Amino acid sequence: MASNNEVPKTCKVIMADTIAKGLLAEVKDTLNKIQGDVDRRPKLAAFLANDDPAALKYAEWSQKTCQENDFDFELRQVDKEELEEKITEANQDDCVDGMIVYYPIFPGNPTHDKYIQETVSLQKDVEGLCHKHLYNMYHNVRFLDPPHNLKKSILPCTPLAVVKILEYLQIYNPILAYGNRLYGKTITVINRSEVNGRPLAALLANDGATVYSVDITGVQLFTRGQGIKQPRHQVRDKEGWGLEQCLPHSDVIIGGVPSENYKVPTELIREGAVCINFSSFRNFDGPAIKEKASIYVPSVGKVTIAVLLRNLVVCFLLVPPFSPDIYFN
Amino acid sequence: MASNNEVPKTCKVIMADTIAKGLLAEVKDTLNKIQGDVDRRPKLAAFLANDDPAALKYAEWSQKTCQENDFDFELRQVDKEELEEKITEANQDDCVDGMIVYYPIFPGNPTHDKYIQETVSLQKDVEGLCHKHLYNMYHNVRFLDPPHNLKKSILPCTPLAVVKILEYLQIYNPILAYGNRLYGKTITVINRSEVNGRPLAALLANDGATVYSVDITGVQLFTRGQGIKQPRHQVRDKEGWGLEQCLPHSDVIIGGVPSENYKVPTELIREGAVCINFSSFRNFDGPAIKEKASIYVPSVGKVTIAVLLRNLVVCFLLVPPFSPDIYFN
Repeated sequence: MASNNEVPKTCKVIMADTIAKGLLAEVKDTLNKIQGDVDRRPKLAAFLANDDPAALKYAEWSQKTCQENDFDFELRQVDKEELEEKITEANQDDCVDGMIVYYPIFPGNPTHDKYIQETVSLQKDVEGLCHKHLYNMYHNVRFLDPPHNLKKSILPCTPLAVVKILEYLQIYNPILAYGNRLYGKTITVINRSEVNGRPLAALLANDGATVYSVDITGVQLFTRGQGIKQPRHQVRDKEGWGLEQCLPHSDVIIGGVPSENYKVPTELIREGAVCINFSSFRNFDGPAIKEKASIYVPSVGKVTIAVLLRNLVVCFLLVPPFSPDIYFN
Repeated sequence: MASNNEVPKTCKVIMADTIAKGLLAEVKDTLNKIQGDVDRRPKLAAFLANDDPAALKYAEWSQKTCQENDFDFELRQVDKEELEEKITEANQDDCVDGMIVYYPIFPGNPTHDKYIQETVSLQKDVEGLCHKHLYNMYHNVRFLDPPHNLKKSILPCTPLAVVKILEYLQIYNPILAYGNRLYGKTITVINRSEVNGRPLAALLANDGATVYSVDITGVQLFTRGQGIKQPRHQVRDKEGWGLEQCLPHSDVIIGGVPSENYKVPTELIREGAVCINFSSFRNFDGPAIKEKASIYVPSVGKVTIAVLLRNLVVCFLLVPPFSPDIYFN
């Protein structure tokens, strides 16, 4: 209930920075716990093999965040033809704990990029893009070493960043059993790329949500079935559906369309929805959305980098004598 | 995400007792804080002027809860023609901090019962049924003494119990501004009695929810308007609507139909809904609802009594030198 006279604002705008800080504090705390047990800082090697200015910018941003949070960061600018060998060297270098590669390397040849991704060793794949990590994510398998369950399977950074944001926003209901905390929530994800939108839809459905995954080819429904009785999500095409059918019933709308001109139609969004944009362009009409959403998160980039460092620490702790589950839960 | 093999149960059943315990602990904590400042325990006088066995049972239950939680409880069985005088005496008795009256006293003459309610002094109205308390509730006014805002306006026990349950279940999102924490939630309340259903629909809409209030006469929509810009709820008739229109879109379904045979039609309930029953009869089909709801609360009675004691402490603290806002927030 409001106090006597004031009416609180319709929409709460939450900046990625606020959420990232909490995650970075948790990461720092974990690092502090092992200080004394270890004589070096976790090191991230970043491979830049294209001339994309956006990639360079992202690298600089990652470097800054690493420096601020006591991580070593090394940008390695290499020729694309040498990239595979450089990654293989880093796989064998005990001083490198995690690697990121700025894609695309071979535009127009995604299979080649996929090949490069698979070159990164599983133990250093902080981006969660190796096949085993992706397979586990799609199959709702959380650990690399069942039944011991000591080694966490890494999740891709942007989808995991969105999960962490939804946890922060209490869309995940901690009252519910772990693994079911999105049950009862309807979520539309606009983007179904292999790197972001599809993994995200799968993660959310695996956690119990009804997810509409939308792109220009149409709508797919991701759920764990009636009564969320399945151990992982299933996918069904929704023939003839579009945003008109999805948005009015969605508690959460996640935009990830990589286009300057695209805007989610505000008039289709239900009153009090939670709107999150992970595109580098603003997918929501800022002024209008603030009159209709209950929560609006305009960008997620800083959370993505915080999640990257969190993944790096998980990988770092995989090296004996550490066990990641001692430090993260 | 679930761990490797197990699939958590579809539905979490939460008993009123669990939630009541937390509230009673808070009440006890408040009483402990003022121990030493005061030489007596809060006293509740309960007036029984009908021969309803259900009222007697409720009285005995209230007595037991009072005894277990260090409150004085006195059951006063009086003739209905003497009730008004007895209440007036208790109004002037400094040893009585709160009063409850078991209704109906004059069946078939609700106006007379209403007159009795108004006889209880505002300071001792722990049931929140005096006109000023009801007026404040409907108008979303939280305090009796604006602009000082030191004296809390009392809310009726069963509706407040449901609010406390929704807070416990994290349906109220604490990320949102106080007063808007149900924004984006659609709630159906089946029952529109003056004591329970209508106040509850108003409270929930005042907190930002879209509320469908349903009874045998039809459906009314309670909201704070587009973008929840109004300071209090507005009511609109939904001509031709029934449960068929309300339930499939409701995040929360609250049943309060006082009939043994009534059951909310499970097939209309959306997957993962939160279902709460405040009727003394079970309004949901237990086995079926556990295959469809995310959370099911089968009864609220124990929370109602906890809220009654909470209200009693607020009234008790209204007596100088206490100020309730020091102890409750």
